[in-house]
Amino acid sequence: MNIKRVVLAERPKGEPTIDNFRFEEIDIPRLQNGELLLKVRWLSLDPYMRGRMDGAQSYAAPVSIGEPMQGECVAEVIDSRNQKFTTGELVTGRFGWVSHAISNGEELRKIPKSNVPEQTALGVLGMPGHTAWVGLNKIAKALSGETIIVSAASGAVGSLVGQLAKKKGLRVIGVVGSQQKHTYVIEELAYDGCINHNTVSSVGDFRELVASHCPEGVDVYFENVAGITLEAVLPNMNDFGRIAVCGMISWYSGQGLQNAMAFPKFWRMVLVKRLRANGFIIFDHKESFPEFWKEVSPLIESGEIKYKEDIRKGLESAPDSFLELLKGGNFGKMLVEL
Amino acid sequence: MNIKRVVLAERPKGEPTIDNFRFEEIDIPRLQNGELLLKVRWLSLDPYMRGRMDGAQSYAAPVSIGEPMQGECVAEVIDSRNQKFTTGELVTGRFGWVSHAISNGEELRKIPKSNVPEQTALGVLGMPGHTAWVGLNKIAKALSGETIIVSAASGAVGSLVGQLAKKKGLRVIGVVGSQQKHTYVIEELAYDGCINHNTVSSVGDFRELVASHCPEGVDVYFENVAGITLEAVLPNMNDFGRIAVCGMISWYSGQGLQNAMAFPKFWRMVLVKRLRANGFIIFDHKESFPEFWKEVSPLIESGEIKYKEDIRKGLESAPDSFLELLKGGNFGKMLVEL
Repeated sequence: MNIKRVVLAERPKGEPTIDNFRFEEIDIPRLQNGELLLKVRWLSLDPYMRGRMDGAQSYAAPVSIGEPMQGECVAEVIDSRNQKFTTGELVTGRFGWVSHAISNGEELRKIPKSNVPEQTALGVLGMPGHTAWVGLNKIAKALSGETIIVSAASGAVGSLVGQLAKKKGLRVIGVVGSQQKHTYVIEELAYDGCINHNTVSSVGDFRELVASHCPEGVDVYFENVAGITLEAVLPNMNDFGRIAVCGMISWYSGQGLQNAMAFPKFWRMVLVKRLRANGFIIFDHKESFPEFWKEVSPLIESGEIKYKEDIRKGLESAPDSFLELLKGGNFGKMLVEL
Repeated sequence: MNIKRVVLAERPKGEPTIDNFRFEEIDIPRLQNGELLLKVRWLSLDPYMRGRMDGAQSYAAPVSIGEPMQGECVAEVIDSRNQKFTTGELVTGRFGWVSHAISNGEELRKIPKSNVPEQTALGVLGMPGHTAWVGLNKIAKALSGETIIVSAASGAVGSLVGQLAKKKGLRVIGVVGSQQKHTYVIEELAYDGCINHNTVSSVGDFRELVASHCPEGVDVYFENVAGITLEAVLPNMNDFGRIAVCGMISWYSGQGLQNAMAFPKFWRMVLVKRLRANGFIIFDHKESFPEFWKEVSPLIESGEIKYKEDIRKGLESAPDSFLELLKGGNFGKMLVEL
């Protein structure tokens, strides 16, 4: 038995391509005392992985050339020389784009037994869900009666942001990239409104559309995408508005950078409107995971909160699926079932 | 007896000039019941007034053409038909660039009797001092052991920011625009370091200089100026750094806007470093004035906190003095003694 894995073959120049990845197989090393062998069952694909492909300094070290792509997985313990884990247990951990992994048991989280599907530990009850909950409650400090704009509104993070905001009593307007997602957000998630940015012809039109959806202005902007969505929302922000900066997928590969608004114009808005822009990364917020899980998991089990999965089969499908994700071609949390 | 006043004659195109102002005299109206007549003794000149000269929407309405320039004053009650005020009392209020004013007594603050000079109610114990205190404590939430960069460090706001930060146990580095201010900040205010931005030849050199003054990075940036100071500080910000956005004097008249850094670059820093950028305006924080006054006034009376005044004589000197202020030609809180 070998470990199959997908490694970074070369760094992308602009948009990543399939040639940036390489498949390989290596032997499974013999287990040492304290170690366990894990069989990966689910791999999560997320936009942040794009950043790790570049050599530039970021909040996490880049993936080295020739090393496996990073990523969070659900895995089953299939052999254990560690007293804390027994065969058959399910855990989440950052094992990467691999079929099997050896672990010393640190930085693993056992998946609590419940009636929800195991892969939700990578989505609505995992890092993306926790990200949504932290951004809404701890970073933006959204309040009942306020208006929130959620970009990437049908995505793994955005769809929970919007649903939790609705439950809190906010007016929720989504921004999505297709008619299908628009329908989902309105009909299934019951947002108060939604804008398909691919039907908008200019930043000015987009801005007007935001204004018409938000007659009392925008108090909170949950930022996943940047680009023209950001530029359309900013002039609609109310005094004391908050921007939870969670991602900027449209700028990750350098598109649209030349046409972006001027920094001094933004800075003036921050002062004049007393805005608060606050970047955050979920890895800094581990301490609040139990509080999040306690609040959200019953809502998943009862069906009160909905989530959507886009499941791909087999590790071989990971690179193509990831490239599709970066172009917004997925619909729901993207998962690879191994 | 007439009211002398300085009115806005026309809106500036770029940098304001003396022709934007006009002197005039009007009759003093007869006092109605509930009104009081005030003789202005001190007028405060502040950079924010530049914004009010433009027609653009801001956090406050612009000055109308033909109306007096706005500004905060110390004035003496010289006649009163209002039971709450008696002749001889000193108050602060936003009477503008005028020799006398009629008031209904609302939005005035009586100056508490103390051993500090009356005009400190416009400076270190007034709006600029309160601005410094709010920005440091409530907006940036600066903590002992951290490093702060204070721009316009010898100014009315900056000099109190730095001194209060020193008392809190921060490492304080100032940025100023002259050798004279540099000496003052180091020798009188005892900051840990200071950079004269007029001796810096490029943004890159400026950035290196900030780095060498802040071996452990920058946790808090107190933003008064924007421009190249902002660009030099940003790459030196630590993770979880905070920027209290109080002003941006170098961008008020449109200078340097073309060469400003790209917005997406900044936005990426906000995410990667989890920065918090927070605009604030002192008028939103009236409720904390008593707490500020209680903390800072004893430090002024004891001489523990130092302040510097740049006193001009006569209302006629206001326009020229204000133009000088915008160019950084003053040294200390600029006041006009009428």
